[in-house]
Amino acid sequence: MKFSLTNEFRENLKIAIENKDVRFIKLSFEGASPADITELLYEFDSIQSKYIVDNIDLETASKIISELDEDTRQIFLTHFESNEISKYLEIIDSDDGADILSELSPEVRKETILSISDKEKSKNLKDLLQYDDDVAGGLMAKELVKCNINWKINQCIDLIKKQAEKVSRIYSVYVTDNKGTLLGKVSLKDIIVASDNSRIKDIYDDYVISVDSKMNQEEVAIIMQKYDLDVLPVINNRGKLLGRITIDDVVDVITETAEEERQIMSGITSDVEEDDSIWKLSNARLPWLVIGIFGGLFGAFFLGSFENNYFEGNELFISLSFFIPLIMATAGNVGIQSSSIVIQSLSNPSAFENTVLNRLFKVLYVSILNGIVLAFIVYFSLSIFDYLNFLNLEIYSKTTLIVSISLFSIVLVSSILGTITPIILNRLKFNPALASGPFITTTNDLIALAIYFLVAILIGSI
Amino acid sequence: MKFSLTNEFRENLKIAIENKDVRFIKLSFEGASPADITELLYEFDSIQSKYIVDNIDLETASKIISELDEDTRQIFLTHFESNEISKYLEIIDSDDGADILSELSPEVRKETILSISDKEKSKNLKDLLQYDDDVAGGLMAKELVKCNINWKINQCIDLIKKQAEKVSRIYSVYVTDNKGTLLGKVSLKDIIVASDNSRIKDIYDDYVISVDSKMNQEEVAIIMQKYDLDVLPVINNRGKLLGRITIDDVVDVITETAEEERQIMSGITSDVEEDDSIWKLSNARLPWLVIGIFGGLFGAFFLGSFENNYFEGNELFISLSFFIPLIMATAGNVGIQSSSIVIQSLSNPSAFENTVLNRLFKVLYVSILNGIVLAFIVYFSLSIFDYLNFLNLEIYSKTTLIVSISLFSIVLVSSILGTITPIILNRLKFNPALASGPFITTTNDLIALAIYFLVAILIGSI
Repeated sequence: MKFSLTNEFRENLKIAIENKDVRFIKLSFEGASPADITELLYEFDSIQSKYIVDNIDLETASKIISELDEDTRQIFLTHFESNEISKYLEIIDSDDGADILSELSPEVRKETILSISDKEKSKNLKDLLQYDDDVAGGLMAKELVKCNINWKINQCIDLIKKQAEKVSRIYSVYVTDNKGTLLGKVSLKDIIVASDNSRIKDIYDDYVISVDSKMNQEEVAIIMQKYDLDVLPVINNRGKLLGRITIDDVVDVITETAEEERQIMSGITSDVEEDDSIWKLSNARLPWLVIGIFGGLFGAFFLGSFENNYFEGNELFISLSFFIPLIMATAGNVGIQSSSIVIQSLSNPSAFENTVLNRLFKVLYVSILNGIVLAFIVYFSLSIFDYLNFLNLEIYSKTTLIVSISLFSIVLVSSILGTITPIILNRLKFNPALASGPFITTTNDLIALAIYFLVAILIGSI
Repeated sequence: MKFSLTNEFRENLKIAIENKDVRFIKLSFEGASPADITELLYEFDSIQSKYIVDNIDLETASKIISELDEDTRQIFLTHFESNEISKYLEIIDSDDGADILSELSPEVRKETILSISDKEKSKNLKDLLQYDDDVAGGLMAKELVKCNINWKINQCIDLIKKQAEKVSRIYSVYVTDNKGTLLGKVSLKDIIVASDNSRIKDIYDDYVISVDSKMNQEEVAIIMQKYDLDVLPVINNRGKLLGRITIDDVVDVITETAEEERQIMSGITSDVEEDDSIWKLSNARLPWLVIGIFGGLFGAFFLGSFENNYFEGNELFISLSFFIPLIMATAGNVGIQSSSIVIQSLSNPSAFENTVLNRLFKVLYVSILNGIVLAFIVYFSLSIFDYLNFLNLEIYSKTTLIVSISLFSIVLVSSILGTITPIILNRLKFNPALASGPFITTTNDLIALAIYFLVAILIGSI
């Protein structure tokens, strides 16, 4: 970071923008990293940000544009002319460039592509716009260095020299046949180490992992992580080399997947961010809340029937109702803990011989242990409550017994449900994280209530 | 993948291990990727896995050892002699080697280091063992190529040729002064493009982001993500170049951080995996469950006092108790949804001018909207229930009014609490994900109950 993010600097920058003091802006941001400037821009509004971006060097400005958050960028770029945007696109890698283009309105997109002077770039961008956002083709960049298998090393070095400016980071040189089919790769290290007269044919590595342009982005991320790859070539269904995916894009996919999982766990239905519209935010939250409400109404109906049929005019029901929050909270906590541990190991096998049956037995032991501890705590606490006359319960000993026994059973049942549900969801090809979400939590609540009152009827009638 | 993971292959492999058919094993795994073999090993037990690892080539075996999950590897390596382990360590990069050493018992660790024949390697490993697991020094590898600023390019190329075997992946060549202080870097691309007689001094890039060896690993991950780095040099407090961190290690840190966050959200206190001991698993879960129990007991006390003081002998309390599950579930769902969205944007600022006040207003609007919808659904459903005589409530219209009005208030209050809590936790330097955990959920439950019965007292007395 070349400038320092003090409040004084922020104030001076604001004044400089107001006074159109270009010199201050140029000096402050000279040699600063685009990522740092981007972070700073989030504190300013669109107009101020545009003034800054307009007055720093083109390369830094391009990087800032490609680093901005999608939604913010989409609004921000409405302040730009299409020939301004195309200047940035000439510099930005084609994968990010295509993302930016896809955020523009169809009309501006067309104008912007037309005003790109580098014809190869505009062709690449048009190619990439064909792919969906969430497949390998949507992640790849067209910029790569490839050489023919029949070339000599020095031909390859000449090509690297020529392309060096266009390709920002070179990891490997890809080797293809005359038709462009991917055959293998040569690392830059091997090129440096080899003698000038050797042929690509003799030094290239024919073992290269590649993916089809239509592969889902989450699968791409798993492959790059599993095989520890920095870069992954993308081919079409005939094996022709189309582009490359670099690890930084996959880091974004991993972060997004984790966020998505958290949203599923929290009962938010679509991908929303805090800065989305109120209507969109409300819409993303309502479905699970409504399901929760119907679960709750069903619970009320259920409690009402119990009370009517078994406890009418009976003081025991009132005493038991005091412990509904305790029963529900414990069932919820136990269920989420169990599913969370299973979800984690489903996404990442990490032990020898871990079968479903082994897992269930283990969960059973853990929950028996925890169930005993919790039931004991409740039994003991309620006995003290009784002694201190803390709660005015009519039938103290019976209530204590019912709460303790049903608590133990609920810990057991919720653990098993929390363990099995993600495994079943996973087998059915659903995201197992759904198991920590509101649908299962609601079901879990109702089952816990049923157990509680069944135990109450059994013991109450003794 | 060179072998295919069919059930037939699994069976044949098992038979081959039993019959000590080395040829089958060698042939099956020839040229296979270590990652694929590792995945397969998780289906076998330690003894079988060791037989496989012992009978494939040393380089593949080393990679498998370094890819195994920490806990599994720790147990697995107890089956190996220290001179077997040291053979692997000679090949494995020093960062992974140091991790493996730190998992061994002190005695075996000492023996293993002594039996490493490459003296530079054993020195590097001993150096790395000094660092904590979760700081930059614990992530870095010692293998890197550095050259003196006064050298010519061809001296540098000679060095790369010499070191090429030891350093598995070369991203950049680091430039240092005579004392080893990091001054900058040269990319391999620039070395290839430059003429042989030019000097490092003339072509190197003096802008290089580096981190101190004591920096926390999460900060390292943030820096590598923010600046899109594939590799990050690590220096000591005097600026001396010590090692380098590669992006694959940071991908692991990101994945771990996401897992940790999920555990915090699920109320699991320490870093556990499904294959940990029953005792450890139980221990990690109990603390929050116990806190939940005390929350529940407090809730019972609270409901008991309400009943005693305001509703004694009053049928209204029984009717209201039917809706406790509905009230609690909604409060929980709303709270978790709100905190989840805030937690996400705290870890990732992504919009112009997003202040705390802006956020609160937005949350308020969204929750008023959702609150009205939910209250209306409940009011409407209960009116139908009443008409159908579905629930035998004594004072139907009063109950309906109390449930609807308190539901609306609870959606509002839980949204605001869910929004403010992570912001406050973040300011106090706690992990904001705690806000979705059981402590806050329990508090939220109790506040919801309090609101529910306060509304009941107000409306009940009308």
